[in-house]
Amino acid sequence: MFTLHNKLKDDTLEIISLALSRVLLMNDSSFPWLVLVPARDGIREIHELCVGDRAVLIEEVAAASEIIQGLFSPDKINVGALGNLVPQLHIHVIGRFRADSAWPGPVWGAGTARPYTEEELNTVSVRIRKAFQQKERVHGR
Amino acid sequence: MFTLHNKLKDDTLEIISLALSRVLLMNDSSFPWLVLVPARDGIREIHELCVGDRAVLIEEVAAASEIIQGLFSPDKINVGALGNLVPQLHIHVIGRFRADSAWPGPVWGAGTARPYTEEELNTVSVRIRKAFQQKERVHGR
Repeated sequence: MFTLHNKLKDDTLEIISLALSRVLLMNDSSFPWLVLVPARDGIREIHELCVGDRAVLIEEVAAASEIIQGLFSPDKINVGALGNLVPQLHIHVIGRFRADSAWPGPVWGAGTARPYTEEELNTVSVRIRKAFQQKERVHGR
Repeated sequence: MFTLHNKLKDDTLEIISLALSRVLLMNDSSFPWLVLVPARDGIREIHELCVGDRAVLIEEVAAASEIIQGLFSPDKINVGALGNLVPQLHIHVIGRFRADSAWPGPVWGAGTARPYTEEELNTVSVRIRKAFQQKERVHGR
């Protein structure tokens, strides 16, 4: 049975479950920042997923990237699977701006999170959820 | 026509060309660090690749991860596509150790590269190239 790691649960808001991954919104208003967690128990690395799951994962990463690009118009998307602190496989998909607080460095370990207000969190999560649902409708899933 | 970005060329040694990507070894002995560059011109983001290329890319990332795991036995693999400084799409695949100089933070922007000696560079690149060739034989490509 798949259980989301507590640290991921604490830092994020769950947006939607895709074919493979749970999509989480990082509660940090500094960056439009999604985290995809393949709902497979005991997996730490991309190469531990089966080939079929990997093909789905890269499509879900691409969908998350396109949605961030479409909603927030960042200058660059950063994608990363690190897991040095949280062993459960999770993939960050982050919109980056030349004017953001960590540019051009990576966001991980750069400053502390600036949590959204409750209202912002609600607005942003609804927009992102709708964008995923729209994509699923278009692709007939 | 595909041309490797000068910054990538300067910082790395070319190891092998796979079906989609050039595999480069970062000339930094601090970490076993490969960079995969899909040989597609003008691509900045994963979602700009076509679906077929994306499926190949994730398999090449998995192969690079398995090879680093097999040769260097790191504690964790870090995978990242950032590109805030070098716009040409490139994916880092890095073996991380609890005792390495950047742990548990990301490697990007953490200290300066410690170039291999010529002899080390030769030894390491040959080992990695052979591992990719072995994998290609097994998979009949």
